[in-house]
Amino acid sequence: MNSAPQEVLNSDVAHGVFQLPGRLSLHHGGSLEQPLLGWRLAGRAGAPIVVALGGISAHQCVFDRSQPRDGWWHEVVGPGLALDSDRVRILGIDYLGGSGESTGPAAGGVFPSLSSYDQAQALCLLLDHLKIERLRAIVGASYGGMVALAFGETHAARVEQLIVISGADRAHPMATAWRSVQRRIARFALGSGRSADGLELARALAMATYRSPDEFAVRFDQPPRQIDGRFVFPVEEYLFARGRDYATRYRPESFLCLSESIDLHSVDATRVKTPTSLVAIREDQLVPIADMRALLSRLPQGRLHELSSTHGHDAFLKEAAALEPIFKSVYGVPSS
Amino acid sequence: MNSAPQEVLNSDVAHGVFQLPGRLSLHHGGSLEQPLLGWRLAGRAGAPIVVALGGISAHQCVFDRSQPRDGWWHEVVGPGLALDSDRVRILGIDYLGGSGESTGPAAGGVFPSLSSYDQAQALCLLLDHLKIERLRAIVGASYGGMVALAFGETHAARVEQLIVISGADRAHPMATAWRSVQRRIARFALGSGRSADGLELARALAMATYRSPDEFAVRFDQPPRQIDGRFVFPVEEYLFARGRDYATRYRPESFLCLSESIDLHSVDATRVKTPTSLVAIREDQLVPIADMRALLSRLPQGRLHELSSTHGHDAFLKEAAALEPIFKSVYGVPSS
Repeated sequence: MNSAPQEVLNSDVAHGVFQLPGRLSLHHGGSLEQPLLGWRLAGRAGAPIVVALGGISAHQCVFDRSQPRDGWWHEVVGPGLALDSDRVRILGIDYLGGSGESTGPAAGGVFPSLSSYDQAQALCLLLDHLKIERLRAIVGASYGGMVALAFGETHAARVEQLIVISGADRAHPMATAWRSVQRRIARFALGSGRSADGLELARALAMATYRSPDEFAVRFDQPPRQIDGRFVFPVEEYLFARGRDYATRYRPESFLCLSESIDLHSVDATRVKTPTSLVAIREDQLVPIADMRALLSRLPQGRLHELSSTHGHDAFLKEAAALEPIFKSVYGVPSS
Repeated sequence: MNSAPQEVLNSDVAHGVFQLPGRLSLHHGGSLEQPLLGWRLAGRAGAPIVVALGGISAHQCVFDRSQPRDGWWHEVVGPGLALDSDRVRILGIDYLGGSGESTGPAAGGVFPSLSSYDQAQALCLLLDHLKIERLRAIVGASYGGMVALAFGETHAARVEQLIVISGADRAHPMATAWRSVQRRIARFALGSGRSADGLELARALAMATYRSPDEFAVRFDQPPRQIDGRFVFPVEEYLFARGRDYATRYRPESFLCLSESIDLHSVDATRVKTPTSLVAIREDQLVPIADMRALLSRLPQGRLHELSSTHGHDAFLKEAAALEPIFKSVYGVPSS
């Protein structure tokens, strides 16, 4: 099951499912017995390694040259792109608790609460396994930014720098409010035997929080249509189309686990000794810019880039041009 | 069923259920046959009459001296308060389609889509019935502000001025997004035979949109508690306590009807000839200040008061001191 490290670091693309040695004790109590962790390495062989972590729906495939749409960060990461895989090698993982190849909740099963610290610990054990002594950087967005901060606090010796996009040391209570409603919807639907419908509803709500009001005002400035005798609004059609698509690809139990993990996230920023570049989006409804500024004030070695984007919290997926100069520091070039 | 007008205007409190004459043709098609409209008049007998309209959960009882908590606007309207019932007489109504004494959807029943124009038309017929030739003002907040604008467009001769708080000529697509999700939740739960649970979920989500992130950041800055083996966040406890309470008092079918009516609202502001004072809250997530400024630019006779309040969209329920000078114009005194 586990690949041979030497070969892994020198091939174009390598992928494996790593079985963690022994028991992984969890931050909020309980443990996972020899859990699996899906991973994928791609980019220039032998180059410095950068871990790229995204939101709770992200996975090990950060970019894929042969199947571009399969990479969750394909607009930003890849050969010649903002985060250039011709200059660094990209390591992606499936989160514990998620819907990928890593250990996660079974359908209808009970699963312990996961912390961003647990993801960081699993990542560190994977680095041991792959014989990666020190990462050039962790670039994390959204939940991935939270995991990056947790890693920086607990494993500072294993990473040179962090780039944390739209993720803070704690979740904002308004964002917790929206996610709490999403989880209650998903659990309600699970209890009604209609789990896919519940995940569709929860994801539709989540989508509304990921974007900015200004984007919606421009995109959905049309009157409703009558469908089956009921008015359906353009923004409603969009949200539920995205929700339906999501429900075919993700398990409700995984959504519940990782959504909760965001809200449980709480790191001590004063102990994150790794040099950290924060990237904050002024239009982000989920991670208010004030929270990113407050995080900056607590970081021993932090700097903050403030960007504007109508994509709001999802800006990290879209704003390649704005991110490119910030990413330059991972090649050993000072960022502007 | 219908009270005698003379007596009504001169008594301390009068209340009735008015049966509209004939058929009420609806703006979006269909009609209601002799629908009922619950109403209540209170305040100084013989004084100029001001209609006070609130959100979709508001009702005919704007304030009640003997049972203060029964009035939906009791912190703002009453004897000696910001809108002073010793100086004007307050008329409140139950919205068509709502959970009060007016005609609304039966449990599980089909009900036509309602427009803010339909509410305005019903109100105008009530004024005929009560022999109120001209209102001193309509003071409307949230959905009530939308109805006030519809009334100003279609019945300008019947009202001297409008005060429109946190309501625009159209709903913002982001607000429509949040309400669409609420309605889908409520319908999903109706279809699962658990309508009260659905209304609880929908209302919990609505509550999050009514307040500002800054208010939640201060109020809910505590870690989660473990309840029945699951983490429950302070903001989650609050939202669902409010949602449960709401579900005991309102019918899901009424919620669906009036929530949709907000999103269908679309008036031509250039045709609102009535002098109109707009009140916008900078922290309002549902009605962005940019939309209120755009509305101002379209109104023939408008002015705009911009306020700040951490109560966000709910500011009209709480910010009596800030509203008081704006309300002075209804007594015949120019507002500051």
